[in-house]
Amino acid sequence: MAAAALFAACGQQESPQQPVDPAQVVMNNILSRKSVRSYTADTIPAQVMENLLRAAMAAPSGRNIQPWSFVVLTDKSRYDTIFEGNFNLNMFKQAAAVVVVCADTTVVRPPRENPDAPAVQQPNGIWRDDMGAVTENLLLAVEAHGLGACWTACYPYPDRMEPVKQALGLPATVVPYSVVPIGCPAGDEQPKDKWDPSRIHHNMW
Amino acid sequence: MAAAALFAACGQQESPQQPVDPAQVVMNNILSRKSVRSYTADTIPAQVMENLLRAAMAAPSGRNIQPWSFVVLTDKSRYDTIFEGNFNLNMFKQAAAVVVVCADTTVVRPPRENPDAPAVQQPNGIWRDDMGAVTENLLLAVEAHGLGACWTACYPYPDRMEPVKQALGLPATVVPYSVVPIGCPAGDEQPKDKWDPSRIHHNMW
Repeated sequence: MAAAALFAACGQQESPQQPVDPAQVVMNNILSRKSVRSYTADTIPAQVMENLLRAAMAAPSGRNIQPWSFVVLTDKSRYDTIFEGNFNLNMFKQAAAVVVVCADTTVVRPPRENPDAPAVQQPNGIWRDDMGAVTENLLLAVEAHGLGACWTACYPYPDRMEPVKQALGLPATVVPYSVVPIGCPAGDEQPKDKWDPSRIHHNMW
Repeated sequence: MAAAALFAACGQQESPQQPVDPAQVVMNNILSRKSVRSYTADTIPAQVMENLLRAAMAAPSGRNIQPWSFVVLTDKSRYDTIFEGNFNLNMFKQAAAVVVVCADTTVVRPPRENPDAPAVQQPNGIWRDDMGAVTENLLLAVEAHGLGACWTACYPYPDRMEPVKQALGLPATVVPYSVVPIGCPAGDEQPKDKWDPSRIHHNMW
């Protein structure tokens, strides 16, 4: 398969081939990422979804614990149950797919103070930091493929998490962290300009 | 200034101009990001540092609170104090710059249940999620510019946070979240391959 075909989505036959500075392409992608909340009826090719999840799993992970898992939803018949009471339900139903980005809040390892002891299940105090990076990688890959997505928070809200946990059968130690609807943009949402030099300090606050 | 010059770092006159698929460039950058822990003596051009921080500030933010600030350190004479007891001190000293990515754990807003009331300072329960995305954007921009960096955790470790807060004079509600040394890679660190299809579920766990 031609490389270009691996990255085509939203009805493109292939992405444009242009002479570009790779650093500039990456910067443009980061600065172009936006919340997209309405979608066409187009589906997401399996190879593109794999790219998106490959990007997500390339996130940095504290102590390399990699606490993440993903439930890819396309069976909309169950969304009323999975997202009961969630004010984003209609947005989820419109999207071609919804990725529930999950985190195991525990880690199975020898105790840190005794690395030679048998592995035990223990709380992972830094799983939440990884998950922000995972979700952002997913969103940036979405943008790069010409798709649109919106990061909606699930953790730390019990009323949003509980229906998802029950309906998807998540293990007891796994929480649904973020819920990310993905599809081809139906509108023309634009990125926010958040650049604010006053947030930058040099050597002292 | 030519666009290419804005993205040059590590002694490059300009980045290579090649016909490329933008989606593939972004994917390659995400998959190439790695922890770089040793650096040459090269400095970081001011325009490149601005690009890096511009990328960081383009992160998504729950309720658009944008809790982030950045302290860019280049005055190594104070690192012994700022990073007292931090086992990464020598890595920080070798880097051209160290970015302390900070978070305000509060937000000044009207109470959510009474939007017409005067703004009050209140805890922001979701600041930590934004900060993972901010740090990842910074790391991805670093990679795109041919530089190297390493995400080191500061929050939630009191023994690492306290010297930084004191030495940099952070406001009481601001925490040092991550500490990111940045420089031109001296070695040949490679990205980890974390792709694991068993982490993907479809419609049910």
